[in-house]
Amino acid sequence: MRILGIDPGITRCGIGVIDMGEDRRARLVHVEVARSPATLATHFRLRDIGQKIEAAIDRFAPDVAAIERVFAHDNLQSVTTTMQVMGVAMYCAGTRNLAMAVHTPSQVKSAVTGSGVASKAQVQHMVSRILGLDGIVRPADAADALAIAICHGWRGDNLQGEGGDEQFSVSLSGGVTTKKALTPAQQQWAQAQALARRTGAVDPRRGRR
Amino acid sequence: MRILGIDPGITRCGIGVIDMGEDRRARLVHVEVARSPATLATHFRLRDIGQKIEAAIDRFAPDVAAIERVFAHDNLQSVTTTMQVMGVAMYCAGTRNLAMAVHTPSQVKSAVTGSGVASKAQVQHMVSRILGLDGIVRPADAADALAIAICHGWRGDNLQGEGGDEQFSVSLSGGVTTKKALTPAQQQWAQAQALARRTGAVDPRRGRR
Repeated sequence: MRILGIDPGITRCGIGVIDMGEDRRARLVHVEVARSPATLATHFRLRDIGQKIEAAIDRFAPDVAAIERVFAHDNLQSVTTTMQVMGVAMYCAGTRNLAMAVHTPSQVKSAVTGSGVASKAQVQHMVSRILGLDGIVRPADAADALAIAICHGWRGDNLQGEGGDEQFSVSLSGGVTTKKALTPAQQQWAQAQALARRTGAVDPRRGRR
Repeated sequence: MRILGIDPGITRCGIGVIDMGEDRRARLVHVEVARSPATLATHFRLRDIGQKIEAAIDRFAPDVAAIERVFAHDNLQSVTTTMQVMGVAMYCAGTRNLAMAVHTPSQVKSAVTGSGVASKAQVQHMVSRILGLDGIVRPADAADALAIAICHGWRGDNLQGEGGDEQFSVSLSGGVTTKKALTPAQQQWAQAQALARRTGAVDPRRGRR
Protein backbone atom coordinates (compact mmCIF):
# COMPACT_ATOMS: atom_id res chain seq x y z
CA MET A 1 0.00 0.00 0.00
CA ARG A 2 1.32 3.39 -1.02
CA ILE A 3 0.60 6.22 1.43
CA LEU A 4 0.89 9.98 0.97
CA GLY A 5 1.54 11.86 4.22
CA ILE A 6 0.98 15.62 4.42
CA ASP A 7 2.14 17.95 7.19
CA PRO A 8 0.11 21.08 6.39
CA GLY A 9 1.77 24.49 6.53
CA ILE A 10 1.79 27.57 4.33
CA THR A 11 5.48 28.44 4.66
CA ARG A 12 6.66 24.83 4.62
CA CYS A 13 4.33 21.92 3.79
CA GLY A 14 5.81 18.45 4.21
CA ILE A 15 4.90 15.92 1.53
CA GLY A 16 6.04 12.31 2.00
CA VAL A 17 5.26 9.08 0.18
CA ILE A 18 5.99 5.63 1.55
CA ASP A 19 5.18 2.07 0.63
CA MET A 20 3.95 -0.10 3.48
CA GLY A 21 4.47 -3.81 2.80
CA GLU A 22 2.43 -6.71 4.06
CA ASP A 23 5.31 -7.34 6.46
CA ARG A 24 4.50 -3.87 7.90
CA ARG A 25 7.88 -2.55 6.82
CA ALA A 26 7.90 1.01 5.49
CA ARG A 27 9.97 2.06 2.48
CA LEU A 28 10.69 5.67 1.46
CA VAL A 29 9.36 6.56 -2.00
CA HIS A 30 9.55 10.35 -1.97
CA VAL A 31 9.83 13.30 0.35
CA GLU A 32 9.81 17.04 -0.27
CA VAL A 33 8.93 20.28 1.41
CA ALA A 34 6.67 22.59 -0.61
CA ARG A 35 7.40 26.21 0.20
CA SER A 36 5.67 29.50 -0.54
CA PRO A 37 7.17 32.95 0.00
CA ALA A 38 5.56 35.25 2.57
CA THR A 39 5.76 38.07 0.00
CA LEU A 40 3.00 36.41 -2.05
CA ALA A 41 -0.74 36.93 -1.43
CA THR A 42 -2.29 34.07 0.55
CA HIS A 43 -4.36 32.64 -2.30
CA PHE A 44 -1.25 32.41 -4.47
CA ARG A 45 0.65 30.76 -1.61
CA LEU A 46 -2.19 28.22 -1.31
CA ARG A 47 -2.01 27.70 -5.08
CA ASP A 48 1.73 27.00 -4.96
CA ILE A 49 1.40 24.52 -2.09
CA GLY A 50 -1.66 22.79 -3.56
CA GLN A 51 -0.08 22.37 -6.97
CA LYS A 52 2.89 20.61 -5.35
CA ILE A 53 0.51 18.24 -3.56
CA GLU A 54 -1.38 17.54 -6.78
CA ALA A 55 1.89 16.91 -8.62
CA ALA A 56 2.96 14.40 -5.95
CA ILE A 57 -0.40 12.60 -6.17
CA ASP A 58 -0.23 12.46 -9.96
CA ARG A 59 3.41 11.31 -10.00
CA PHE A 60 3.35 8.72 -7.20
CA ALA A 61 -0.29 7.55 -7.34
CA PRO A 62 -0.81 6.82 -3.63
CA ASP A 63 -3.66 4.56 -2.50
CA VAL A 64 -4.52 6.80 0.41
CA ALA A 65 -3.65 10.25 1.79
CA ALA A 66 -3.07 10.94 5.48
CA ILE A 67 -2.90 14.37 7.05
CA GLU A 68 -2.29 15.73 10.52
CA ARG A 69 -5.24 17.33 12.23
CA VAL A 70 -4.76 21.00 13.12
CA PHE A 71 -5.96 22.14 16.49
CA ALA A 72 -7.10 25.70 17.11
CA HIS A 73 -5.26 26.40 20.34
CA ASP A 74 -2.30 28.16 18.83
CA ASN A 75 -1.60 31.52 17.23
CA LEU A 76 -4.85 32.47 15.48
CA GLN A 77 -3.39 33.69 12.18
CA SER A 78 -1.11 30.70 11.79
CA VAL A 79 -3.96 28.31 12.65
CA THR A 80 -6.17 30.00 10.06
CA THR A 81 -3.66 29.58 7.25
CA THR A 82 -2.76 26.05 8.36
CA MET A 83 -6.44 25.07 8.28
CA GLN A 84 -6.68 26.61 4.83
CA VAL A 85 -3.71 24.52 3.66
CA MET A 86 -5.39 21.48 5.23
CA GLY A 87 -8.53 22.28 3.22
CA VAL A 88 -6.49 22.60 0.03
CA ALA A 89 -4.71 19.29 0.70
CA MET A 90 -8.05 17.56 1.34
CA TYR A 91 -9.46 19.14 -1.83
CA CYS A 92 -6.51 17.82 -3.87
CA ALA A 93 -7.00 14.31 -2.44
CA GLY A 94 -10.77 14.60 -3.01
CA THR A 95 -10.48 15.62 -6.67
CA ARG A 96 -8.20 12.57 -7.21
CA ASN A 97 -10.77 10.35 -5.43
CA LEU A 98 -8.27 9.18 -2.83
CA ALA A 99 -9.28 7.67 0.48
CA MET A 100 -8.19 10.01 3.24
CA ALA A 101 -7.37 9.75 6.93
CA VAL A 102 -6.82 12.46 9.53
CA HIS A 103 -4.54 11.66 12.49
CA THR A 104 -3.88 13.78 15.54
CA PRO A 105 -0.32 14.94 16.32
CA SER A 106 -0.21 12.70 19.39
CA GLN A 107 -1.31 9.65 17.36
CA VAL A 108 1.49 10.35 14.89
CA LYS A 109 4.16 10.85 17.56
CA SER A 110 2.97 7.84 19.48
CA ALA A 111 3.04 5.61 16.39
CA VAL A 112 6.65 6.38 15.46
CA THR A 113 8.24 6.99 18.89
CA GLY A 114 5.95 5.24 21.37
CA SER A 115 5.26 8.58 23.10
CA GLY A 116 2.47 11.02 22.27
CA VAL A 117 4.56 13.91 23.57
CA ALA A 118 7.83 13.11 21.75
CA SER A 119 10.07 15.96 20.58
CA LYS A 120 10.58 16.89 16.93
CA ALA A 121 14.12 15.50 17.17
CA GLN A 122 12.79 12.16 18.42
CA VAL A 123 10.33 11.99 15.52
CA GLN A 124 13.09 12.83 13.01
CA HIS A 125 15.36 10.19 14.55
CA MET A 126 12.72 7.46 14.52
CA VAL A 127 11.51 8.21 11.00
CA SER A 128 15.07 7.68 9.75
CA ARG A 129 15.37 4.43 11.74
CA ILE A 130 12.00 3.08 10.58
CA LEU A 131 12.76 3.83 6.92
CA GLY A 132 16.33 2.50 7.23
CA LEU A 133 17.88 5.79 6.17
CA ASP A 134 21.37 7.04 6.94
CA GLY A 135 21.34 10.28 8.91
CA ILE A 136 18.38 12.36 10.00
CA VAL A 137 15.44 13.49 7.84
CA ARG A 138 15.52 17.31 7.61
CA PRO A 139 13.75 19.66 7.92
CA ALA A 140 11.25 18.62 10.59
CA ASP A 141 8.34 19.18 8.19
CA ALA A 142 9.70 16.47 5.88
CA ALA A 143 10.09 14.05 8.79
CA ASP A 144 6.59 14.89 10.03
CA ALA A 145 5.02 14.13 6.63
CA LEU A 146 6.74 10.72 6.61
CA ALA A 147 5.73 10.12 10.24
CA ILE A 148 2.09 10.79 9.32
CA ALA A 149 2.32 8.31 6.44
CA ILE A 150 3.99 5.67 8.68
CA CYS A 151 1.38 6.29 11.38
CA HIS A 152 -1.38 5.67 8.88
CA GLY A 153 0.31 2.57 7.54
CA TRP A 154 0.52 1.00 10.97
CA ARG A 155 -2.74 2.21 12.47
CA GLY A 156 -4.87 2.11 9.32
CA ASP A 157 -7.73 3.84 11.07
CA ASN A 158 -9.28 7.31 11.10
CA LEU A 159 -10.30 6.97 7.46
CA GLN A 160 -12.88 9.49 6.45
CA GLY A 161 -15.69 7.32 5.16
CA GLU A 162 -19.13 8.21 4.03
CA GLY A 163 -20.70 9.72 7.08
CA GLY A 164 -17.56 11.48 8.31
CA ASP A 165 -14.59 10.74 10.52
CA GLU A 166 -16.31 8.43 12.96
CA GLN A 167 -18.26 6.27 10.54
CA PHE A 168 -15.44 4.05 9.41
CA SER A 169 -12.76 2.38 11.39
CA VAL A 170 -10.29 -0.43 10.88
CA SER A 171 -9.22 -1.73 14.24
CA LEU A 172 -5.73 -3.24 14.40
CA SER A 173 -6.45 -5.30 17.45
CA GLY A 174 -10.03 -6.35 16.92
CA GLY A 175 -10.20 -7.01 13.19
CA VAL A 176 -11.97 -4.93 10.62
CA THR A 177 -14.94 -2.88 11.75
CA THR A 178 -17.02 -1.11 9.17
CA LYS A 179 -20.26 0.75 9.20
CA LYS A 180 -20.13 1.41 5.45
CA ALA A 181 -18.82 -0.46 2.41
CA LEU A 182 -15.04 -0.39 1.95
CA THR A 183 -13.38 1.22 -1.04
CA PRO A 184 -11.04 -1.04 -3.05
CA ALA A 185 -8.00 0.51 -1.35
CA GLN A 186 -9.55 -0.03 2.06
CA GLN A 187 -10.42 -3.65 1.20
CA GLN A 188 -6.86 -4.19 0.04
CA TRP A 189 -5.55 -2.76 3.28
CA ALA A 190 -7.89 -4.81 5.43
CA GLN A 191 -6.79 -7.94 3.58
CA ALA A 192 -3.13 -7.03 4.05
CA GLN A 193 -3.75 -6.55 7.75
CA ALA A 194 -5.55 -9.84 8.12
CA LEU A 195 -2.68 -11.56 6.31
CA ALA A 196 -0.10 -9.86 8.54
CA ARG A 197 -1.96 -11.09 11.61
CA ARG A 198 -2.22 -14.65 10.29
CA THR A 199 1.47 -14.83 9.36
CA GLY A 200 2.53 -13.31 12.67
CA ALA A 201 4.45 -10.51 10.97
CA VAL A 202 6.18 -7.88 13.05
CA ASP A 203 3.92 -5.22 14.44
CA PRO A 204 6.39 -2.42 15.05
CA ARG A 205 4.27 -1.05 17.85
CA ARG A 206 4.30 -4.33 19.75
CA GLY A 207 7.38 -6.25 18.69
CA ARG A 208 7.24 -9.75 17.17
CA ARG A 209 4.30 -11.81 18.38
CA MET B 1 -15.67 45.06 -13.54
CA ARG B 2 -16.97 41.55 -12.89
CA ILE B 3 -16.78 40.37 -9.29
CA LEU B 4 -17.16 36.87 -7.84
CA GLY B 5 -18.41 36.83 -4.25
CA ILE B 6 -18.05 33.71 -2.11
CA ASP B 7 -19.73 33.03 1.21
CA PRO B 8 -17.75 30.01 2.43
CA GLY B 9 -19.56 27.06 4.00
CA ILE B 10 -19.35 23.29 3.67
CA THR B 11 -23.08 22.55 3.80
CA ARG B 12 -24.10 25.59 1.77
CA CYS B 13 -21.56 27.80 -0.02
CA GLY B 14 -22.93 30.95 -1.64
CA ILE B 15 -21.48 31.83 -5.06
CA GLY B 16 -22.52 35.16 -6.62
CA VAL B 17 -21.31 37.07 -9.67
CA ILE B 18 -22.10 40.71 -10.34
CA ASP B 19 -21.00 43.36 -12.79
CA MET B 20 -20.14 46.73 -11.25
CA GLY B 21 -20.40 49.55 -13.77
CA GLU B 22 -18.45 52.78 -13.85
CA ASP B 23 -21.64 54.42 -12.56
CA ARG B 24 -21.21 52.18 -9.48
CA ARG B 25 -24.43 50.34 -10.27
CA ALA B 26 -24.41 46.61 -9.61
CA ARG B 27 -26.03 44.11 -11.97
CA LEU B 28 -26.73 40.45 -11.15
CA VAL B 29 -24.91 38.00 -13.43
CA HIS B 30 -25.25 34.71 -11.55
CA VAL B 31 -26.03 33.31 -8.14
CA GLU B 32 -26.07 29.78 -6.80
CA VAL B 33 -25.62 27.84 -3.60
CA ALA B 34 -23.19 24.92 -3.81
CA ARG B 35 -24.17 22.17 -1.43
CA SER B 36 -22.51 19.03 -0.13
CA PRO B 37 -24.21 16.25 1.82
CA ALA B 38 -23.13 15.62 5.41
CA THR B 39 -23.04 11.89 4.60
CA LEU B 40 -19.93 12.41 2.48
CA ALA B 41 -16.34 12.43 3.85
CA THR B 42 -15.02 15.95 4.37
CA HIS B 43 -12.46 15.86 1.55
CA PHE B 44 -15.17 14.84 -0.91
CA ARG B 45 -17.41 17.62 0.40
CA LEU B 46 -14.57 20.08 -0.17
CA ARG B 47 -14.12 18.63 -3.68
CA ASP B 48 -17.81 19.14 -4.51
CA ILE B 49 -17.83 22.74 -3.25
CA GLY B 50 -14.50 23.64 -4.89
CA GLN B 51 -15.50 22.22 -8.25
CA LYS B 52 -18.61 24.43 -8.22
CA ILE B 53 -16.44 27.48 -7.52
CA GLU B 54 -14.04 26.54 -10.31
CA ALA B 55 -16.94 26.04 -12.70
CA ALA B 56 -18.31 29.49 -11.86
CA ILE B 57 -14.88 31.08 -12.42
CA ASP B 58 -14.44 29.30 -15.73
CA ARG B 59 -17.97 30.13 -16.91
CA PHE B 60 -18.24 33.76 -15.83
CA ALA B 61 -14.57 34.86 -15.97
CA PRO B 62 -14.62 37.37 -13.08
CA ASP B 63 -11.87 40.00 -12.80
CA VAL B 64 -11.60 39.57 -9.06
CA ALA B 65 -12.83 37.24 -6.31
CA ALA B 66 -14.01 38.46 -2.91
CA ILE B 67 -14.57 36.26 0.12
CA GLU B 68 -15.79 36.78 3.65
CA ARG B 69 -13.22 36.38 6.41
CA VAL B 70 -14.02 33.66 8.90
CA PHE B 71 -13.43 34.38 12.55
CA ALA B 72 -12.56 31.67 15.03
CA HIS B 73 -14.91 32.58 17.83
CA ASP B 74 -17.69 30.19 16.98
CA ASN B 75 -18.27 26.46 17.17
CA LEU B 76 -14.82 24.91 16.67
CA GLN B 77 -15.78 22.15 14.24
CA SER B 78 -17.83 24.46 12.04
CA VAL B 79 -15.05 27.07 12.05
CA THR B 80 -12.55 24.40 11.03
CA THR B 81 -14.55 23.26 8.03
CA THR B 82 -15.45 26.83 7.06
CA MET B 83 -11.77 27.78 7.10
CA GLN B 84 -11.05 24.72 4.97
CA VAL B 85 -13.70 25.83 2.45
CA MET B 86 -12.17 29.31 2.53
CA GLY B 87 -8.79 27.76 1.73
CA VAL B 88 -10.29 25.79 -1.16
CA ALA B 89 -12.02 28.92 -2.55
CA MET B 90 -8.75 30.87 -2.33
CA TYR B 91 -6.93 27.99 -4.00
CA CYS B 92 -9.46 27.97 -6.87
CA ALA B 93 -9.05 31.74 -7.33
CA GLY B 94 -5.26 31.37 -7.08
CA THR B 95 -5.00 28.66 -9.72
CA ARG B 96 -7.01 30.93 -12.06
CA ASN B 97 -4.64 33.84 -11.26
CA LEU B 98 -7.50 36.03 -10.02
CA ALA B 99 -6.96 39.06 -7.81
CA MET B 100 -8.58 38.36 -4.45
CA ALA B 101 -9.95 40.41 -1.57
CA VAL B 102 -11.02 39.33 1.90
CA HIS B 103 -13.70 41.40 3.67
CA THR B 104 -14.94 41.07 7.22
CA PRO B 105 -18.61 40.30 7.88
CA SER B 106 -19.11 43.78 9.36
CA GLN B 107 -17.57 45.44 6.29
CA VAL B 108 -19.97 43.49 4.09
CA LYS B 109 -23.06 44.27 6.19
CA SER B 110 -22.04 47.89 6.50
CA ALA B 111 -21.53 48.27 2.74
CA VAL B 112 -24.97 46.98 1.76
CA THR B 113 -27.12 48.10 4.74
CA GLY B 114 -25.17 50.95 6.35
CA SER B 115 -24.91 48.96 9.57
CA GLY B 116 -22.16 46.57 10.53
CA VAL B 117 -24.53 44.60 12.75
CA ALA B 118 -27.44 44.25 10.30
CA SER B 119 -29.59 41.10 10.38
CA LYS B 120 -29.55 38.46 7.65
CA ALA B 121 -33.03 39.63 6.60
CA GLN B 122 -31.76 43.22 6.20
CA VAL B 123 -28.88 42.01 4.03
CA GLN B 124 -31.23 39.91 1.89
CA HIS B 125 -33.60 42.86 1.51
CA MET B 126 -30.88 45.34 0.55
CA VAL B 127 -29.15 42.98 -1.88
CA SER B 128 -32.42 42.67 -3.78
CA ARG B 129 -32.91 46.46 -3.78
CA ILE B 130 -29.34 47.19 -4.89
CA LEU B 131 -29.54 44.69 -7.76
CA GLY B 132 -33.06 45.84 -8.72
CA LEU B 133 -34.55 42.38 -8.23
CA ASP B 134 -38.18 41.56 -7.51
CA GLY B 135 -38.60 39.74 -4.21
CA ILE B 136 -35.95 38.59 -1.76
CA VAL B 137 -32.77 36.65 -2.56
CA ARG B 138 -32.97 33.26 -0.88
CA PRO B 139 -31.38 31.44 0.83
CA ALA B 140 -29.30 33.79 2.99
CA ASP B 141 -26.07 32.20 1.70
CA ALA B 142 -26.91 33.34 -1.83
CA ALA B 143 -27.65 36.89 -0.65
CA ASP B 144 -24.44 36.91 1.40
CA ALA B 145 -22.33 35.94 -1.62
CA LEU B 146 -23.86 38.81 -3.61
CA ALA B 147 -23.42 41.19 -0.67
CA ILE B 148 -19.70 40.30 -0.53
CA ALA B 149 -19.37 41.00 -4.27
CA ILE B 150 -21.24 44.33 -3.95
CA CYS B 151 -19.13 45.26 -0.92
CA HIS B 152 -15.98 44.66 -2.91
CA GLY B 153 -17.29 46.61 -5.89
CA TRP B 154 -17.98 49.65 -3.75
CA ARG B 155 -15.04 49.49 -1.38
CA GLY B 156 -12.46 48.09 -3.77
CA ASP B 157 -9.98 47.58 -0.95
CA ASN B 158 -8.61 44.67 1.04
CA LEU B 159 -7.02 43.21 -2.07
CA GLN B 160 -4.40 40.62 -1.26
CA GLY B 161 -1.36 41.93 -3.04
CA GLU B 162 2.19 40.76 -2.98
CA GLY B 163 3.23 41.12 0.60
CA GLY B 164 -0.09 40.04 2.07
CA ASP B 165 -3.36 41.68 3.06
CA GLU B 166 -1.97 45.02 4.16
CA GLN B 167 0.48 45.68 1.33
CA PHE B 168 -2.01 46.89 -1.23
CA SER B 169 -4.91 49.22 -0.85
CA VAL B 170 -7.12 51.28 -3.10
CA SER B 171 -8.60 54.09 -1.06
CA LEU B 172 -12.01 55.31 -2.20
CA SER B 173 -11.65 58.69 -0.58
CA GLY B 174 -7.99 59.47 -1.05
CA GLY B 175 -7.27 58.15 -4.51
CA VAL B 176 -5.24 55.09 -5.35
CA THR B 177 -2.57 54.02 -2.90
CA THR B 178 -0.21 51.26 -3.87
CA LYS B 179 2.88 49.78 -2.41
CA LYS B 180 3.28 47.34 -5.28
CA ALA B 181 2.52 47.38 -8.99
CA LEU B 182 -1.15 46.98 -9.92
CA THR B 183 -2.45 44.01 -11.87
CA PRO B 184 -4.35 44.85 -15.08
CA ALA B 185 -7.69 44.28 -13.30
CA GLN B 186 -6.63 46.54 -10.44
CA GLN B 187 -5.48 49.25 -12.87
CA GLN B 188 -8.81 48.99 -14.67
CA TRP B 189 -10.62 49.34 -11.39
CA ALA B 190 -8.53 52.30 -10.26
CA GLN B 191 -9.22 54.03 -13.56
CA ALA B 192 -12.95 53.34 -13.26
CA GLN B 193 -12.89 54.81 -9.77
CA ALA B 194 -11.04 57.91 -10.86
CA LEU B 195 -13.53 58.34 -13.70
CA ALA B 196 -16.47 57.91 -11.33
CA ARG B 197 -15.04 60.58 -9.07
CA ARG B 198 -14.46 62.99 -11.95
CA THR B 199 -17.96 62.53 -13.39
CA GLY B 200 -19.55 62.87 -9.96
CA ALA B 201 -21.25 59.49 -10.23
CA VAL B 202 -23.32 58.19 -7.35
CA ASP B 203 -21.35 56.73 -4.51
CA PRO B 204 -23.96 54.51 -2.87
CA ARG B 205 -22.29 54.90 0.50
CA ARG B 206 -22.49 58.68 0.43
CA GLY B 207 -25.28 59.70 -1.90
CA ARG B 208 -24.80 61.88 -4.98
CA ARG B 209 -21.99 64.39 -4.61
